[in-house]
Amino acid sequence: MVEYQQILNTIYERLRVVKNKGEVAHYISELATVDPTNFGIYLNRIKGDNFCVGNWDIPFSIQSISKVLSFAKAFSLQKNKVFNRLDVEPSGNPFNHMALLELENGIPRNPFINSGAIVIADILVSELENPKQDFLNYVRDITNDPTIDFDVKVAVSEAETGYNNYAAANLLKSFGNLQNDVEEVLDFYFHQCAIAMNCKQLSDAFYLFANRGKCMRGIAHLTTNQVKRINAIMLTCGFYDEAGEFAFEVGLPGKSGVGGGIVALLPNEFTITCWSPGLNEKGNSLLGMQALELFTTETKQSIF
Amino acid sequence: MVEYQQILNTIYERLRVVKNKGEVAHYISELATVDPTNFGIYLNRIKGDNFCVGNWDIPFSIQSISKVLSFAKAFSLQKNKVFNRLDVEPSGNPFNHMALLELENGIPRNPFINSGAIVIADILVSELENPKQDFLNYVRDITNDPTIDFDVKVAVSEAETGYNNYAAANLLKSFGNLQNDVEEVLDFYFHQCAIAMNCKQLSDAFYLFANRGKCMRGIAHLTTNQVKRINAIMLTCGFYDEAGEFAFEVGLPGKSGVGGGIVALLPNEFTITCWSPGLNEKGNSLLGMQALELFTTETKQSIF
Amino acid sequence: MVEYQQILNTIYERLRVVKNKGEVAHYISELATVDPTNFGIYLNRIKGDNFCVGNWDIPFSIQSISKVLSFAKAFSLQKNKVFNRLDVEPSGNPFNHMALLELENGIPRNPFINSGAIVIADILVSELENPKQDFLNYVRDITNDPTIDFDVKVAVSEAETGYNNYAAANLLKSFGNLQNDVEEVLDFYFHQCAIAMNCKQLSDAFYLFANRGKCMRGIAHLTTNQVKRINAIMLTCGFYDEAGEFAFEVGLPGKSGVGGGIVALLPNEFTITCWSPGLNEKGNSLLGMQALELFTTETKQSIF
Amino acid sequence: MVEYQQILNTIYERLRVVKNKGEVAHYISELATVDPTNFGIYLNRIKGDNFCVGNWDIPFSIQSISKVLSFAKAFSLQKNKVFNRLDVEPSGNPFNHMALLELENGIPRNPFINSGAIVIADILVSELENPKQDFLNYVRDITNDPTIDFDVKVAVSEAETGYNNYAAANLLKSFGNLQNDVEEVLDFYFHQCAIAMNCKQLSDAFYLFANRGKCMRGIAHLTTNQVKRINAIMLTCGFYDEAGEFAFEVGLPGKSGVGGGIVALLPNEFTITCWSPGLNEKGNSLLGMQALELFTTETKQSIF
Repeated sequence: MVEYQQILNTIYERLRVVKNKGEVAHYISELATVDPTNFGIYLNRIKGDNFCVGNWDIPFSIQSISKVLSFAKAFSLQKNKVFNRLDVEPSGNPFNHMALLELENGIPRNPFINSGAIVIADILVSELENPKQDFLNYVRDITNDPTIDFDVKVAVSEAETGYNNYAAANLLKSFGNLQNDVEEVLDFYFHQCAIAMNCKQLSDAFYLFANRGKCMRGIAHLTTNQVKRINAIMLTCGFYDEAGEFAFEVGLPGKSGVGGGIVALLPNEFTITCWSPGLNEKGNSLLGMQALELFTTETKQSIF
Repeated sequence: MVEYQQILNTIYERLRVVKNKGEVAHYISELATVDPTNFGIYLNRIKGDNFCVGNWDIPFSIQSISKVLSFAKAFSLQKNKVFNRLDVEPSGNPFNHMALLELENGIPRNPFINSGAIVIADILVSELENPKQDFLNYVRDITNDPTIDFDVKVAVSEAETGYNNYAAANLLKSFGNLQNDVEEVLDFYFHQCAIAMNCKQLSDAFYLFANRGKCMRGIAHLTTNQVKRINAIMLTCGFYDEAGEFAFEVGLPGKSGVGGGIVALLPNEFTITCWSPGLNEKGNSLLGMQALELFTTETKQSIF
Repeated sequence: MVEYQQILNTIYERLRVVKNKGEVAHYISELATVDPTNFGIYLNRIKGDNFCVGNWDIPFSIQSISKVLSFAKAFSLQKNKVFNRLDVEPSGNPFNHMALLELENGIPRNPFINSGAIVIADILVSELENPKQDFLNYVRDITNDPTIDFDVKVAVSEAETGYNNYAAANLLKSFGNLQNDVEEVLDFYFHQCAIAMNCKQLSDAFYLFANRGKCMRGIAHLTTNQVKRINAIMLTCGFYDEAGEFAFEVGLPGKSGVGGGIVALLPNEFTITCWSPGLNEKGNSLLGMQALELFTTETKQSIF
Repeated sequence: MVEYQQILNTIYERLRVVKNKGEVAHYISELATVDPTNFGIYLNRIKGDNFCVGNWDIPFSIQSISKVLSFAKAFSLQKNKVFNRLDVEPSGNPFNHMALLELENGIPRNPFINSGAIVIADILVSELENPKQDFLNYVRDITNDPTIDFDVKVAVSEAETGYNNYAAANLLKSFGNLQNDVEEVLDFYFHQCAIAMNCKQLSDAFYLFANRGKCMRGIAHLTTNQVKRINAIMLTCGFYDEAGEFAFEVGLPGKSGVGGGIVALLPNEFTITCWSPGLNEKGNSLLGMQALELFTTETKQSIF
């Protein structure tokens, strides 16, 4: 039997003393104030037991990790119809995301790059009655935790400097791939990204992706087939321009955010969340990537 | 001596009967209502005589032609400082203007592509006390015609659907190359493009570029050197992705707009404006291009 | 227990009558002559049993599938040193593979796009004493089948029209990322792609990737870690610009070739090869893709 | 009357003492050996008088300047048919010339980028009986100087390291836009670039472009219209990615080469050649650009 707690402890002790912890995201001013020494891991096994270490209970801004949850909601509402408005291929190119959108006539490469997530936000704004509240409730439901909330300061902070997202939303609009107002869609999007969760909550929220669509409370939110597809997109597109590297080094579907969180999962086995606010040059948590690599190497558990 | 009136008449008679007059721009709804059979030419010689034919006296939306006038104003105000914020190279690539801006870190290729003109608008919003009115007065001054005005309906119409310009302005902002608010800059920009002028007025306005910087009233607005540079940019960048073609076929510095106008000039000799609302696939007036080609072939006058 | 034979039979019967079988690759003249009605599947389970249907025993040109085998050989020889000369990220962009190579200064995106495979070929030409023969022997060894051979006609045919590969190799050379002569490297590369194998042989060759590095004869050719990494690259980069789609629809690491073959595998469970020469517009076997999608849907077996 | 000799002398004295003379091209090994202190100017007036200063009589490798001459020859042979195989728009983009060729399906942007010049070389290889000798004779004819010759060492040197040109030629071939063998076309191309001429000879060779198509010996090689078009292409495309800058700073049609030569001309007035082997970062002669800017500023002569 794998000694999970011992492995987590070893990883934690080994990495917490690393000098280079990366750089905390500073383009969203609210995120820049987070203490860079925070470091936590939470492992949630499908079988029921769970393990944790460090600052697993401090909430942080989930940022792009929210894209998996918004996509899951939109996918469950619109089924394959969502793929009329976006693709599922890796974006590949670090230089020119706007360029790609332009070249491909306003069809985002996948739901996890910003332009794709904005299209998904647009779908939810159209489909939900009270978009922000309804989506928050969805996250609370699947996590089985009604205390989860937006960090409004972060949402406001992002709206103030999110020119690149305004550019992407307007470009989508110019291609006819945004149905609601730019302001309304981005207001939803900035709030979605500004949800605050801790490592436990994220591991619990992603439980359904490791459990064939059934959440912590045993309710089926997605079909087995839909979950398989979401996991596939996480693996190929979940880590900005480092998706190949993550698949290569870690070998699990997962998603990172600039708040320093990374969630990953092994179908039918576990979900695991690491949090360390310092980012590598690709925008993924530096310690988080290392922790997950150590974890899959140590446990010899990966999808490959 | 060149028989200008006869040449204009011949060109007019030959082209007015052409069946394929191109397609009137429809992305700005107000422009879509213009009568496509309008066709006029006005030649303004530096020596003092002038010649005209057809609907030379009907005002139309000058659109991108305004970019030369706004650049001239900004250049006269900030001198070479303007080149800290934009380049003077042809854009070359028809596919991906947004891409280019992204690849080159928010420095527009030249002042005549949209992103470049938006940077110039930003400069004028910063430099002028009452930006819209002051710029309008500048155009009236150099043209010596106080009746020139904005077509506010066109400005409003463009603001409603100008998502691509909103995208470009926000992208510039994300690169730190826009100092004022996106809304304020684009309001100025949409008004600038919505100035209505007829062929005579445009030929009079561009007189200063053919007359070493001195306008119709004999006042020097630009140095000889500045005029030389503006003419060079018109030649290399004045016709979207057809700049090379225009230099090649016509051989004059010039600028076109999606309202169907084209102004061109031979330094020390003349300015000439053609107007026909139907556009070719590159967005330049179809008959206008042909008229100017016939004119330079017939008169054997070009800069080459 | 899964009824593999029955599932294969059902898939075979269902797809063999499909009218649209795609188009046989015609850019290599020798491949254009293959009978498009060929259709075979071979399943090789790690536990020892195997299943087959249709034309599983007719050899075909493995083409790009060879890139996995050449990479495996180079990886086992040079270990992580190979990553000094290429990356492991998806290429993403269907339009401009040469462009990508140029933008990224001659470092191919991954070992499965042409430029990357040419770099790997260059490594093998440097490392192997008799490159072509030694590599052929390697393929025979891991497959445990000494009858496998090059189809020299195909190699010659490809050399005659492989201008794009000559362009890529010269571009690599101009960036200093090709150590041997262009001609020598491409001669190796064209032969590697021209190996002829049938569905059984391919399933046997790829056995080692599903069996933690040990081939059919039980010999370890790669470490567990290396195999995990190769599988990750297959998943993210194995299907040209359809890698995301394949991960999404099928959910297995795999590799396709323009000869119409596709190999896929589930670690510790099986390898499976489909062959049908007609390709979809992305260059992957049309029936092969459908067969594998049906197979993983029917068996509910995928890595996700 | 303009005091040409005095102006040339002033420019020469002012620039010869400049410390930063740029860097001599080193990617062609033969060119790297040229003495960087060479500096010469030769002005050839259409009226018959001429002026010179410095090392105007030392031959250097004309390199890309030859592209104007090969295009002129091909244009005179095939008329507008040449434009079926290439365009006349500026290339615009410094990053990715190969990319551009790929995106635009093998149609080079203009005859002065390498891929375009290779297409022109292909045309001449098809059209001329003894391509290399016939082209050399053409250059001798228009220059009225039978002593002009290839510098074979330079041609050989370029062939040895010209991988980028091999890449471009093969890419053209893959798009069906090269009719002859890659080797044969590039052999012609490398020789064409390796013609050695001094400032006087180049000014004499380009006389026909300033003289409505008639060469020094009064023979018409091109129509007035063809000359106008070649001059237009020189202005918009003659200086790699600095074409806009040159039009802007100098205001004359011209062409540069990595050998450090620049030829420019004012129609009906003069041709002028500067030579200084040190290049700026864009690959144009550093002193040559400055000399021409001073010349047009001093003489107030430009096409604008």
